[in-house]
Amino acid sequence: MIKIQGGVTAARGFQAAGIRCGIKQQGPDLALIYSRTQCSAAGVFTTNAFKAASIIVNTEKLQSGRARAVVVNSGNANACTGDRGLRDSRRICDFAADLIHIPTQDVLNASTGVIGVALPMQKIEAGIANAVDKLSDDGGEAASLAIMTTDTVPKTSAYEFELAGKTVRVGGMCKGAGMICPNMATMLCFITTDAAISGQLLRRALESNVERSFNSLTVDGDMSTNDSLIMLANGASDCPEIVDGSDDFEKFDKAVGQVCLDLAMACARDGEGATKYVEVNVVNAASYADAKSAAMTIANSPLVKTAIFGEDPNWGRVLCAAGRSEAKVIPEKTSLYFGDVKIVENGEPLAIAPDAARKPMLEKNLQITVDLGVGSSRATAFTCDFSYDYVKINAEYHT
Amino acid sequence: MIKIQGGVTAARGFQAAGIRCGIKQQGPDLALIYSRTQCSAAGVFTTNAFKAASIIVNTEKLQSGRARAVVVNSGNANACTGDRGLRDSRRICDFAADLIHIPTQDVLNASTGVIGVALPMQKIEAGIANAVDKLSDDGGEAASLAIMTTDTVPKTSAYEFELAGKTVRVGGMCKGAGMICPNMATMLCFITTDAAISGQLLRRALESNVERSFNSLTVDGDMSTNDSLIMLANGASDCPEIVDGSDDFEKFDKAVGQVCLDLAMACARDGEGATKYVEVNVVNAASYADAKSAAMTIANSPLVKTAIFGEDPNWGRVLCAAGRSEAKVIPEKTSLYFGDVKIVENGEPLAIAPDAARKPMLEKNLQITVDLGVGSSRATAFTCDFSYDYVKINAEYHT
Repeated sequence: MIKIQGGVTAARGFQAAGIRCGIKQQGPDLALIYSRTQCSAAGVFTTNAFKAASIIVNTEKLQSGRARAVVVNSGNANACTGDRGLRDSRRICDFAADLIHIPTQDVLNASTGVIGVALPMQKIEAGIANAVDKLSDDGGEAASLAIMTTDTVPKTSAYEFELAGKTVRVGGMCKGAGMICPNMATMLCFITTDAAISGQLLRRALESNVERSFNSLTVDGDMSTNDSLIMLANGASDCPEIVDGSDDFEKFDKAVGQVCLDLAMACARDGEGATKYVEVNVVNAASYADAKSAAMTIANSPLVKTAIFGEDPNWGRVLCAAGRSEAKVIPEKTSLYFGDVKIVENGEPLAIAPDAARKPMLEKNLQITVDLGVGSSRATAFTCDFSYDYVKINAEYHT
Repeated sequence: MIKIQGGVTAARGFQAAGIRCGIKQQGPDLALIYSRTQCSAAGVFTTNAFKAASIIVNTEKLQSGRARAVVVNSGNANACTGDRGLRDSRRICDFAADLIHIPTQDVLNASTGVIGVALPMQKIEAGIANAVDKLSDDGGEAASLAIMTTDTVPKTSAYEFELAGKTVRVGGMCKGAGMICPNMATMLCFITTDAAISGQLLRRALESNVERSFNSLTVDGDMSTNDSLIMLANGASDCPEIVDGSDDFEKFDKAVGQVCLDLAMACARDGEGATKYVEVNVVNAASYADAKSAAMTIANSPLVKTAIFGEDPNWGRVLCAAGRSEAKVIPEKTSLYFGDVKIVENGEPLAIAPDAARKPMLEKNLQITVDLGVGSSRATAFTCDFSYDYVKINAEYHT
């Protein structure tokens, strides 16, 4: 498996564009992803009871297991917009379908930005027309820029690997300064591949990989109305169709997993106001659910996150968060490391020079490892610290 | 029921003291509560797997349903201190018992402050001796000052009411800048009463009232290793013993509830870095559990809390938090108010002038009400906003 460039246009047969249509104050704000041929398609969406219009529309369309294009706008989430929002979401798909001469059933859409405000449809329609004109085989980068909100960097990842003598590619892009944007938490991710695979199996690959990547990511614990992960597979690599239970599926699944992991880690690294990237590893837990609960509780703790911002090896806050999680925790069996430095062994602090304990905290990337000592399961949560700028970004933004 | 002064010495037969023994950098840091006669006693403690030594010791002792004195120190939590911590906790009780000539079984203790550091026992023993000398009938205020950590104000509440022709008093004190202190989340609360009631029934009164008061309080969602609520009843009012199912129990239960509520609200108001006091009411939920889940999810959301700090009527963040809670939420049935201003009706934003929507946000006290429209249950969460000072207090404190 080789890392390559190109994001959503790394895979053959995909085109993309990213243009400005004037929804945001500045910068590109409309992206289009398009496959020259029909695709299998699958999606995973937010479980929030308040779902954006696009989530409702996409969920309906994806029951067919296929799609060929996705229109994405930033600057307006089209959420809490009632019937008008649903009509607008459908209209976006219809309008793009007409212009690119495919059935509207094959066009999906996604939105991110302010909520409770109707989409500026005139601007968006003009934008779609412009984006169709600009579609290109190397439009992946432009598209990744057009979906950003408070993100400070575009986020793409792509890999290629051999399958039955053919080169198969999987690539994607995502946005999300963690789970959040100034007005509404949103993580959007789009992945394309030139593998040949059914919609059903594609869905399985997505679901199996989202748990240890995007679902293990947190900036502030807030889950959005708009969170979406959509994947298209067009078969343009000419590889044989990937079937369930095969070695090919394993290879493919691994590549999808790596793209998801890269993009989730990029989101944590770009968390709002983040000064540190943090991986919380919980090992030797009684079950995966236990390990995940402990890792996410630690990663979501404001006390832990502010201590990391302050570069303080405050292990008590980490153990305290583990202790209130749903995991089985036996204090006398619990050990803790900052980086490679063992701080707590079997529930009691080791005698360590303050400078030695603090050293890992000074790095830009921090690994926290909690060994629960009661089993053999492990999980990692991806997060960042909690700084003045998080408060600034989220308090000073006015609706 | 009349509000009175006096905190833990409002009820007859109780004495208290608050003195400095030198654990903290400055200020009083050791309190003693004492009853002239034997008391029924009950306690409610943290469910964190990492429990402070005092929690383990108190839980053992309270199996008898009685106690007569409590030693409380601030500045050191005596948590994650292993066997040494347990020995120190027991030693505190033994030492105080000797000086006040009661069985050590009748002495409890509680601690709050830094963790993972052994208690300075010499200072504490000298402090206990000093506190025993200073015990007085109006020592409630001094005691309430000695248990503070990052609290900016002492917190007491007391009421008196008639029971069978006798005047009964219930009073208490607590500490906790929300659920947290610089190094370790801690809420400590002590309530005394001169009612006559069994330990078992006292426990019932505590448990029935803690759910809608302290367990509905959050500053940052972190739960401590040391959280404790201890209540003593000495019967000095000469009222007849309160029995289960009686009107007297109802009256008593209500007074205990009011003291718990006052103290929990005082903690939210004094949350670390708080500039606003916030009550999140969820009404017309399908069940109390649903209402509580939605209210606490909203109250814990960093996005909601930073919006309140920014005085921004960002209703989308509130609905989004409700939507990811465990409550049954049907968008088209959900309405939202800031103060008395209805912002969202049946899932759609109303056309309101920005100034009108923002007006309630400018007040020092904010009521947020979410009407789920799917049942008749309600719950209130008590919290505060999330400011730069929260980050400052928790990032700049170094272990």
